[in-house]
This record gives sequence, C-alpha cells and structure tokens, in this order.
Amino acid sequence: MEAISIGLLGLGTVGSGVVKIIENHQEKLLHQIGCPIKINKVLVTDLTKKRDIELSLDLLTTNALDIIDNPNIDVVVEVMGGVEETRRYLLQALKNKKHVVTANKDLMAEHGSELLTAAAENGCDFFYEASVAGGIPILRSLVEGLSSDHITKMMGIVNGTTNYILTKMSKQGSPYEVALKEAQELGYAEADPTSDVEGLDAARKMAILATLGFSMKIDLEDVKVQGITHITEEDLQYAKQLGYTMKLIGIAVLEDDKVEVSVQPTLLSDSHPLASVNNEFNAVYVYGEAVGETMFYGPGAGSLPTATSIVADLVVVMKNMVLGVNGKRIITPQHEKKLKKPAEIYSKYFLRIHAKDELGVFANITSIFSHHGVSLEKILQLPVKEKGIAEIVLVTHNASLQAYEDVQAELEALQSVHHIKSSYRVEGNGNS
Amino acid sequence: MEAISIGLLGLGTVGSGVVKIIENHQEKLLHQIGCPIKINKVLVTDLTKKRDIELSLDLLTTNALDIIDNPNIDVVVEVMGGVEETRRYLLQALKNKKHVVTANKDLMAEHGSELLTAAAENGCDFFYEASVAGGIPILRSLVEGLSSDHITKMMGIVNGTTNYILTKMSKQGSPYEVALKEAQELGYAEADPTSDVEGLDAARKMAILATLGFSMKIDLEDVKVQGITHITEEDLQYAKQLGYTMKLIGIAVLEDDKVEVSVQPTLLSDSHPLASVNNEFNAVYVYGEAVGETMFYGPGAGSLPTATSIVADLVVVMKNMVLGVNGKRIITPQHEKKLKKPAEIYSKYFLRIHAKDELGVFANITSIFSHHGVSLEKILQLPVKEKGIAEIVLVTHNASLQAYEDVQAELEALQSVHHIKSSYRVEGNGNS
Repeated sequence: MEAISIGLLGLGTVGSGVVKIIENHQEKLLHQIGCPIKINKVLVTDLTKKRDIELSLDLLTTNALDIIDNPNIDVVVEVMGGVEETRRYLLQALKNKKHVVTANKDLMAEHGSELLTAAAENGCDFFYEASVAGGIPILRSLVEGLSSDHITKMMGIVNGTTNYILTKMSKQGSPYEVALKEAQELGYAEADPTSDVEGLDAARKMAILATLGFSMKIDLEDVKVQGITHITEEDLQYAKQLGYTMKLIGIAVLEDDKVEVSVQPTLLSDSHPLASVNNEFNAVYVYGEAVGETMFYGPGAGSLPTATSIVADLVVVMKNMVLGVNGKRIITPQHEKKLKKPAEIYSKYFLRIHAKDELGVFANITSIFSHHGVSLEKILQLPVKEKGIAEIVLVTHNASLQAYEDVQAELEALQSVHHIKSSYRVEGNGNS
Repeated sequence: MEAISIGLLGLGTVGSGVVKIIENHQEKLLHQIGCPIKINKVLVTDLTKKRDIELSLDLLTTNALDIIDNPNIDVVVEVMGGVEETRRYLLQALKNKKHVVTANKDLMAEHGSELLTAAAENGCDFFYEASVAGGIPILRSLVEGLSSDHITKMMGIVNGTTNYILTKMSKQGSPYEVALKEAQELGYAEADPTSDVEGLDAARKMAILATLGFSMKIDLEDVKVQGITHITEEDLQYAKQLGYTMKLIGIAVLEDDKVEVSVQPTLLSDSHPLASVNNEFNAVYVYGEAVGETMFYGPGAGSLPTATSIVADLVVVMKNMVLGVNGKRIITPQHEKKLKKPAEIYSKYFLRIHAKDELGVFANITSIFSHHGVSLEKILQLPVKEKGIAEIVLVTHNASLQAYEDVQAELEALQSVHHIKSSYRVEGNGNS
C-alpha cells in the first residue's frame, strides 16, 4: 500500500490535535502500520480563519462532498460534532466504502446502531473510542480485554465538568455558582453548561457504554437522569460526616438479563476506587463476574487526549486496511433490550428531611419506611435549625426504587414534613 | 472454520479458570469469533489428581508432545510456569505453527524477545497480557489505546502481595511479620515470599511494561530493585505525617531517548492516583505526552482474573484465525536500548538519620547536602529518641541519584552520624 489517505470533517481543537499527532508521530505510525498516512482534505467552515496549526490552503475545503465523495480518501475522521447533518455525511461516506472514526457521543447515543449496521453492510470499519471518556481506552477494554467476561455493573464518572464542580464544592467548600464559574474560566465548562450539569452528556456516554458492555441496544431515553444543580453545601457536609463522597455517577447494572441505567448524584463510600477521582478527571469502574473490579482512569476530554483516542482508532483501521480485514470485527448488540422496572431496581438511599420538631413526628416518619419494607441503616437527628424545625438525615438499607418512591410520596403528603430537602442514591458502606 | 482447537499446558488454578470460562461462555465466544472453541488436550503432572473441574480423562496427558506436536491443535495456552523447559516447549509449538498465549512473566522477562521473534518468523500470534497485572488489560492499552502517543513515564503497583502487606502496615499499624503472615493465610503470599517481598516479581513485570511502552528491549538486569522487608513502622508514620503513602512502586521513565527502570519502596503524594490503590489490587499509571495521566486498576492476580486475560488474548488469536491474519501484528522493539546513568536519574528522596545530639552536627549534615548541590525541601528535627541520639528526617528537592549516593556515602563516613536508618524515593509533593 502506498499511503493511507485521510479526510477530516472539522478542524476545531480536537481536529487540530489529530493533525498534530499524525504529523509528530509519522515514524512511530509508519513502524506500526507499515505504510505512511497522508491528510488529504479537511472540512472547515472558514477557509481564512487563523489557526494554530499550519495546513496548506489546498488541503482545506468548505464542501463536505470533497471528502465523503472523494475516491482518493480511505478514512473519514469526524470531529465536526452535530447530529443530523453529520449522520447523513457518515452514512454517505460508508456507502462510498470509507472507514469512519468519530468522537461524537451525541451521534453515537442517538444513531449508533444505524451507523454500525451501515458500516458492517459496506465492509467498513467504524470506531468511536473517543466518544466516551476522551483519553481512556474504555470501549477497547470492554470489547477486547473483558471480551470473555460477563460484565454485570459499570459505574462511571464520565463528565469532567461536573466532577470538577463537585470536587471544588466538596474539597474547598465553594458554592455551586462559584465552582461553575471557575470551571468555565478554565475551559472545563461551556458558556451554557446545561448539557453537562443536568447530566445529559453523561447519560449519552452511559447509553454507549451500556450498549457495548451488555451487548444490548440502550437508548438515551432508557437512561434515568438527574443533574447536580440542586446539590447543597449541607448535603456535602453530611456526605463527608457519614464517610461518603458525592459524585455524579452513571450506573449501569445487568441482573437476570435485565438492565437499569441511570445518571445521578450519588454518595459513594470513601473507600470506593471512584471516590478519589477528582477534578476534571474521568474514570469508568467495571465489575465482571470473572475479573472482579477494574477501573480505567484518565482525562475525559481535552483536545490532545481525545485526539490520541481518535488516532488509536485510526491505527486499527489502517492496520486492518493493510491486512484487508476491515469491517470484520463490528459487533452489534446480541441481546434483546429488557429494562428493569422500578420494583426491580435496588439501591440504598440518602434522604434529608425538614420536619416539625414535635413529639411523635419522628416515629411517624420511620413508620412510613417500615410500612413499605424499607429498613434504615443510619439515622442522624440533628439540632433544630430554625425554631420548630428538625433536620433528619436517613440512609436506607437496600430497597427497591418503587418502595423508596412510595415512601417519598407518603412523606411529602405528611402534614408534619415540611420538605424533602434532598435525596440521593448511595453506593457502598461509608463509615460503618 | 469448523472449530478452533486448544491445547492447555498446565491445569492449576489459572488453567482451571480458563477451562471454566471457555465452558461457561460458549455462546458469547461463538457470537464474537464465529466458530466454536474446543479444548483438545491438557498437560498435567498427575492424571489421577482430584480437581474441582471435571474433564474427561482422555483430554488429559502427561506428555507435552501430545500438545506441542499435535497437528490438530491450533493454539497453545501456557499456564504451567517455569522458564527453561517452558521456553523449549513454546519454541517447538511455534515451529509447528501453533499460536501461543501465555501468562508467564518470568519467561517473558527473560526470553520475551526470542519468543516474539520466533512467533513473527512462523507467522504465529503470541500474546501475554496475563503476565502483567492479571486482570488489567494494560498491555493491550499500551499497544493499541496509546499507540499514537509518546509514553514518557509508567508507574506501577504490580505486585499484590507487597501492596497488601504495605496497606495493612500503613492502615492498621500491623508489623511487617504480622501483615506477611496474614497475606500468606489469605493466599496472597506464598510460603516462600522472597520473590514478592524482595521486588523481583515486580521487576519482571516492569521489564515487560518498559519494553512494550518504550519500544526498547529492557532486561531484568536493567531494573534496579529494592524490596519492602526493611520498611519500619517509623518510616510509615513519617510518611503519613508528611502527606505521603508508602507503596512498592515500579517506575519506568523515558527522557532524551534514555530509560531508567526501578522497583523500590516509594513515598507517593497522598493525592497521586496510585496512593489510593489498596490491599491486593494492582494499578498501572501511564503518562503520555498527548493523553496526559491515565491509570488502569484491577486485580493483579487470582485464577479467574488471570484466566479472563488469557481468554481475551485467545479471542484475538481466534478472530485472527478466522480472518487469516495471524502473526501480522507482532511489534518488536523499535529503539536501541539506552539506559540512564546515575547522574542522569533525577528524583526526590526521603532520608532518616540517627546522629549524635550535639552542637554542630546538624550543620555538618546539611552542609554535605549543599556541597553536593542537593537542596532540601523538608526537614524534621525530632525529639531525641535515646539519650544522646537525634533523629533527623529530610526530604530533598529533585537531585541526581549520583549526587544523592555521594551524599549518603559522606554521611555514612561522618563520625557524628550513627546510622542512615532509611532512604526512599519520593514522588509528588506531600503536604506543601
């Protein structure tokens, strides 16, 4: 093979990172692949824009067809983002027998199955490692390293923005708004942080992880999502006091062939491997029946880490090209989707309640729990905050989500309960 | 392809794990590979031994040639251990065009290059993921996930026995002998723990990691080794006080095309991702120029985790067989070996000294450091332990190993210094 020719859709920070890595590692890549790599064409929106990498002007184009319909291009690298238009481009590229590498989690969470099927039909490779947890080779580890294991649980800190914010809130006592502003100034959070702080970004990644880890097509709508905007300083203080660390955790569990997937603020036992994943870092914890606990830790975003993942995927595509075996390793979901019902989802919960500081109220509250079969592991009765108001903090034993929601509904209806101030999932034991 | 036929050299706990996983995951493996897997022959030393897995007697043999010279066997899985005999068996198997999967770190550290070269010459696959950090897909991540990155540093907790012992000593204040006994009772340490506690086991794994990560043939003799047997309670207390955690760390650094590899008890900053890897767990921390910090965490040993890694390697071999591309992806070291000299190895060091409690002694000691250009970051002067003896604890700034060794030699020669009680490498900042 003379040289492998690449077309790049997009030249933002990640795209520029891909160009830089390919340029700086020609020798290493040649050694690994056996033939040189050439960037043939790059789609940009503005030909004249000043960039921090130098690319000859005749490599740039504003017309996507110059790439996806270009017979000289072997592999399309998609780093332009977006969903609908991008999906059309990539389907067309696959139809034209071009292999695809993408970093686009939104696209994969919504149209992953369609794109993978199109790739298999056209004998093309289609890789998307960079779409989850930027620099961490987690998809590869799920597909290959744990290929013979039965994965039953995955937990991920898969959004760097929220992890940064929660770290600052927990460790430095920063209020949410201050931590968010800091994250924005450092470039970890966008001007409109909604998708991050409401948990949507993490939910997309968990859908991708669950689909791959459980070999079952999990859609974004299947992921129960709760963001971090309502977490208060008090919650974090109680968490610490009880031996927990608050993290935005994506959880995917497979049990009796049924799956639950959620993203929610979770109190993690301090001794859990994920509890010490701080700042903007990501990590994915995987539990397999045979292997037991493993965890993959690294940068979840950033132009160079993400570009590293993309180029790693590219290397596999190119090795496959040299060997003539592209499109032979695409694994589509094997099992029919079965989701757990709330009565089948078990967890421990943390609940903080403001109630009337009166005789009998506490007994009323605990009797609601016992009425629904939810037993309590920890109870903190706290000094009255305001006149007439008692703060009660409870941690349950394992209970079904159904029962727990029933408890909450009855508590809300109770005259003597002012507010359920907060409620979080709990993983692990805290101080026992 | 009708079925892929496997020969197993060894049927200890790991071998039994491989048999169990293959038997329990036939459907999943079939889905991934596209054809069934059959265990054809298993080498054992005793045909009549009672085992916890049932294998028909005609599958067992005491003659290795029934496997390595058997024309019906496609892949040899080596889980018998040992070096010289095993090496001969595997070379013969490769000559007979059989692919090989091994979990044997001693073999790989000593004869890895020879075996990989023989595999490439015979068009065979040769994988050894399970030889380093049992259940963690670290070799795969280095070869594939970080394939386009320039890896400059690897740090590993790659021996579960010593990590268990140090965790018990640090967290529970157990003396070394008690922690070792506990590890032996739990099956984490062998009756003769020498290879673990003296760091040799870790050194073999670091040689394998460095060879792969830096693409440079690093031999066991190139690894500087120090074990954990001399670590005292006092050392652990000072470590904690200064904001460090004591771990047996394998370090491999690449700088200016030169490499240093060592295994030694190291004071790690509490905030380092490796500092919270406890008990029998292993982890490998990898720093790449583009990706930044990543870490891979999981069980370092155990029959099922190790067997998971072996079967994952097997799956790759079998996919390659189906595609007809075996032996095409073996990467032999690209760069000539260049080792750093002591004058080129820079680190911080912790030093604990017993000296005469007299006027001027402290000034004498610090002047030796400054004479050799080694500046001090932290100094603890401690209450006199015994009459006339002062305990002095120092942490240096970055210094060359050469300069640090010269300082130690001069201190030893000093009349007023009784003993250098302990000396450790330091990584990170501790309490600053």
